[in-house]
Amino acid sequence: MTPKISQFLSQKNPSTPCLVVDIDEVELRYRAMQAALPAARIYYAVKANPARPLLDRLVFLGSCFDAASWEEVDLCLSAGARPENISFGNTVKKVSAIKAAYDAGVRLFVFDCVEELEKLARFAPGSRVYCRLLVNNHGAEWPLSRKFGTTPESARTLMLRARELGLDPYGISFHVGSQQLSADAYEVAIAQAGSLLADLAADGLRLRMVNLGGGFPIQYRDDVPGIAHFGQVISRAMKIHFGETLPEILVEPGRFIVGSAGVVSTEVVLVSQRGRDEGPRWVYLDIGRFGGLAETEGEAIRYMIRTARDGEEVSSVALAGPTCDGADILYEKSCYTLPVTLEAGDRVEILATGAYVSTYCSTRFNGFAPLAEHYI
Amino acid sequence: MTPKISQFLSQKNPSTPCLVVDIDEVELRYRAMQAALPAARIYYAVKANPARPLLDRLVFLGSCFDAASWEEVDLCLSAGARPENISFGNTVKKVSAIKAAYDAGVRLFVFDCVEELEKLARFAPGSRVYCRLLVNNHGAEWPLSRKFGTTPESARTLMLRARELGLDPYGISFHVGSQQLSADAYEVAIAQAGSLLADLAADGLRLRMVNLGGGFPIQYRDDVPGIAHFGQVISRAMKIHFGETLPEILVEPGRFIVGSAGVVSTEVVLVSQRGRDEGPRWVYLDIGRFGGLAETEGEAIRYMIRTARDGEEVSSVALAGPTCDGADILYEKSCYTLPVTLEAGDRVEILATGAYVSTYCSTRFNGFAPLAEHYI
Repeated sequence: MTPKISQFLSQKNPSTPCLVVDIDEVELRYRAMQAALPAARIYYAVKANPARPLLDRLVFLGSCFDAASWEEVDLCLSAGARPENISFGNTVKKVSAIKAAYDAGVRLFVFDCVEELEKLARFAPGSRVYCRLLVNNHGAEWPLSRKFGTTPESARTLMLRARELGLDPYGISFHVGSQQLSADAYEVAIAQAGSLLADLAADGLRLRMVNLGGGFPIQYRDDVPGIAHFGQVISRAMKIHFGETLPEILVEPGRFIVGSAGVVSTEVVLVSQRGRDEGPRWVYLDIGRFGGLAETEGEAIRYMIRTARDGEEVSSVALAGPTCDGADILYEKSCYTLPVTLEAGDRVEILATGAYVSTYCSTRFNGFAPLAEHYI
Repeated sequence: MTPKISQFLSQKNPSTPCLVVDIDEVELRYRAMQAALPAARIYYAVKANPARPLLDRLVFLGSCFDAASWEEVDLCLSAGARPENISFGNTVKKVSAIKAAYDAGVRLFVFDCVEELEKLARFAPGSRVYCRLLVNNHGAEWPLSRKFGTTPESARTLMLRARELGLDPYGISFHVGSQQLSADAYEVAIAQAGSLLADLAADGLRLRMVNLGGGFPIQYRDDVPGIAHFGQVISRAMKIHFGETLPEILVEPGRFIVGSAGVVSTEVVLVSQRGRDEGPRWVYLDIGRFGGLAETEGEAIRYMIRTARDGEEVSSVALAGPTCDGADILYEKSCYTLPVTLEAGDRVEILATGAYVSTYCSTRFNGFAPLAEHYI
């Protein structure tokens, strides 16, 4: 938690649950990524957190943007982003969304199958297109590999087809999975991309770009390798697999940029032993899986939790949200402990919750209002 | 799909994705439940769908309401429900919510642990309270048994304690799990409740109510037993375990009342073989798990899907939503088939989606607006 967030919480004592994001921390993270990967252009993954103050700061810093929908393209444009700095990065796009983005000047689109490519040829003629490869997501805490991407053989055919369709076959992308803890995953994927670009060059088609996607991890409860390590592994892999004439490199960090910059402040609604002599206490918070903490599904993302009683004796807890839904459990198996004196009414801070929280939040499940947000 | 919904969709051709709910069908379902369980008072589980036109109709029909939060209590009151017809049915309640409900006249509260009971004694003095038992959820497609409920021994102690605290120890509740396919689950739970009430009577405390919860199933892709069957099994079990002097019986249907009354109309965004010779086609719709179909998590609820091409040759499909999230997959393992000619732009109807869809929907994940709703 940054000093600014700490001060905001203690001085303003905002109603819970709420998300507080330190925009200066977002800037620091953006600069850290630039420093670790100086050869790459940063396309911020808007889906991680599309709040206007955050987009404003990133536009000011010269960031580019990875948009998942026409609505996200439009948000970036409203914040002053130029259309040439926006990539429409969802492989699944409605025709109406392609048209709207194209009309607004966006000329960079992803695809991973011939059907989508044909839509792009028709409704975004002449645009730069890049094909998403299916790569191994092993090591990622939130994998993305089942739904997206195609094989190298198919990508090769598709890029040649893109040229025939009058599109500009620009590059290759992949995604190693979100919160990817292993830098090797990037290295393996870069090798695949390198080999594909070499094959296409042999076909007489020279691609100019490799999009490394996102996935860069941040610290939750457990330590993760720093961004400098990822930068080193990636830079070395790019040199090995592409030689001295590197293609343009794009990255699409979302979680890395905004995750650590945010804190969810929540209130304990109930602490109970549930009539059992053994087993954990159950701690019910006023935010749960349907209030924004969707990434606790399967206990995939394990947030760090702070209380005002930290330092006191602790014991095992299960953590759950405030709704009547049996699936609204945050952690049962991940061995969380919290102070034994914790009680209803206590405030609890959930750290590194700047990404993928405000947007996953349900509109009004069980009647609860969407998560309040403060950008400071 | 009711004729009224069919007509609405063909005449109005509303933008997708959207939910269309036939309020007259809601009334039919309410009356069917009354007929199947004439001895029970119906407390509609507002969380299933809190839309105002629906609450208005249920108030008109004389329904009572099971609210999960102060916000839901308030919605019911706004729709004209009387506070004495509202149960605050969430075992996890903020003090502020208890106070607000009590101030508004609500006098019926659930609890499942001593900590919550003490909150109620302090902030809802003199209210009728009922204790939620933990019962087996085997047979339920959306189980609720890990997070809520207590043991019979503990419930016995708690009800005696409730009396000491100046509360009115009113009854016992349980929940056999949502979309419960086995009527036997109610019978087993009723036996437990009967035995507990007998024990408490021996302690000199006569409870007057048993709340059977919800869980009554509706037809999705697979057939389910009808409500008459559940009514028979429950009525028989009540007689066996309570004799001729039955306690008041409450039921809390949500899905049963509104699920079948709604249809989600969606558009195919992309159909792709994904560069593979084998395996299913992937069909991407403009609604997914984060657009409201949250109950497809783990493929728990398997909706029936209708297209304008039904009757043509079909083949295997995987179904996914429109977001960039790898978890946004509806069905991969549940052996869905759809017409081979299905293509982007086709409309597809997802049946029996009136419950637990509009409220689970995320505020704006990937930039997509919340699900549009039409009540007709």
